[in-house]
Amino acid sequence: MIAVDCVVFGYHDGQLEVLLVRRGVEPFAGAWALPGGFVLPDESLDAAAARELAEETGVTGTRLEQFHAFGDPHRDPRGRVVTVAYVALTRPGETRAGTDAAAARWHGVDALPTLAFDHAAIVAHARATLRVRARSAPVGFDLLPPTFSLPELQSLYEAVLGDALDRRNFRKKLLSTGLLVPLPERRAAATGRPASLWRFDAERYAALVPAGFEFRL
Amino acid sequence: MIAVDCVVFGYHDGQLEVLLVRRGVEPFAGAWALPGGFVLPDESLDAAAARELAEETGVTGTRLEQFHAFGDPHRDPRGRVVTVAYVALTRPGETRAGTDAAAARWHGVDALPTLAFDHAAIVAHARATLRVRARSAPVGFDLLPPTFSLPELQSLYEAVLGDALDRRNFRKKLLSTGLLVPLPERRAAATGRPASLWRFDAERYAALVPAGFEFRL
Repeated sequence: MIAVDCVVFGYHDGQLEVLLVRRGVEPFAGAWALPGGFVLPDESLDAAAARELAEETGVTGTRLEQFHAFGDPHRDPRGRVVTVAYVALTRPGETRAGTDAAAARWHGVDALPTLAFDHAAIVAHARATLRVRARSAPVGFDLLPPTFSLPELQSLYEAVLGDALDRRNFRKKLLSTGLLVPLPERRAAATGRPASLWRFDAERYAALVPAGFEFRL
Repeated sequence: MIAVDCVVFGYHDGQLEVLLVRRGVEPFAGAWALPGGFVLPDESLDAAAARELAEETGVTGTRLEQFHAFGDPHRDPRGRVVTVAYVALTRPGETRAGTDAAAARWHGVDALPTLAFDHAAIVAHARATLRVRARSAPVGFDLLPPTFSLPELQSLYEAVLGDALDRRNFRKKLLSTGLLVPLPERRAAATGRPASLWRFDAERYAALVPAGFEFRL
């Protein structure tokens, strides 16, 4: 039997989170699990992942990307089930509404409850993949609102990479890409000066990539 | 049903090649195909890939890495079969002996015969993955003999990337990594001076990676 599972990452209140659902049926009834389920007979893997995510969490329209198949013969007590795992990155506003409508909840990746099946290993694999990708593609911006301050951007990258970053070096690297656009408005800060706001120039990035440009952090 | 398929790359006579087997049974009897087959009930995906590759080509001891699952509902005329695809890079000497013993043959990736199932798409996906990885990890050396000249190394990278490289720029980039070790011996060339020989310092690379070193081409 073939299943799909979705690791949906979000960034809320300075924390990298993953979207989990509580299982209603055995095995692992009552345990938290990744949204997912069996692939239907005439369904592609991509379609199955999008359908299961929508059904179980209300989240739709998010780009799901396959990252690994997990096939340990004993990973499911019901019998042989290979699961193809997908990852998605969501912006704060994008999924809050959808998930409120369903039995799904965000959980900080550093304090996950006990998960069903091998889902803890699947989340760990997705997180490691995200960490590597964040160094060579501007994926961090997919987790932020369209406008952000540089301290917010740095906090996000520290959460994704699981590591503190040097403020001066981080700003210099990011600004040198020419992909951050300063905005005229500013946001009042709790302390000190109002923060400058920026947006990521996705169109410019898309135009630079075919010419050999590489985002590096 | 779950299958595994192996895309084994090799580099021979200046050409990037892939190892294919001729199918003996329907469907696609007589057609060339990737080595692979069904996963056994109590077998992991990794073990199935290694077993199928050994059985069908005689190649053993090669590092197989999972890269994508292919699950179009109509990819196999026998019914629903999802295949988890693996990629391996082999050195010239490593596999010649093994494959001579079996019904497997190398084919240039730019002139493949018609392949069974969706195997042409699987090879194309593997090749695209290899091209991306070659830019950010020293995978090219896994396809070469332990000692090589810089023109040989450049030819290999041109075959992998599918693109001509500037000789001066290529040498500068590679030598600046500090990972190429010059050897005292030289190899007679057909024309001109004997070629200097080099080896890749895999131990040094392994020691540098945890410190944040990144190979870039």
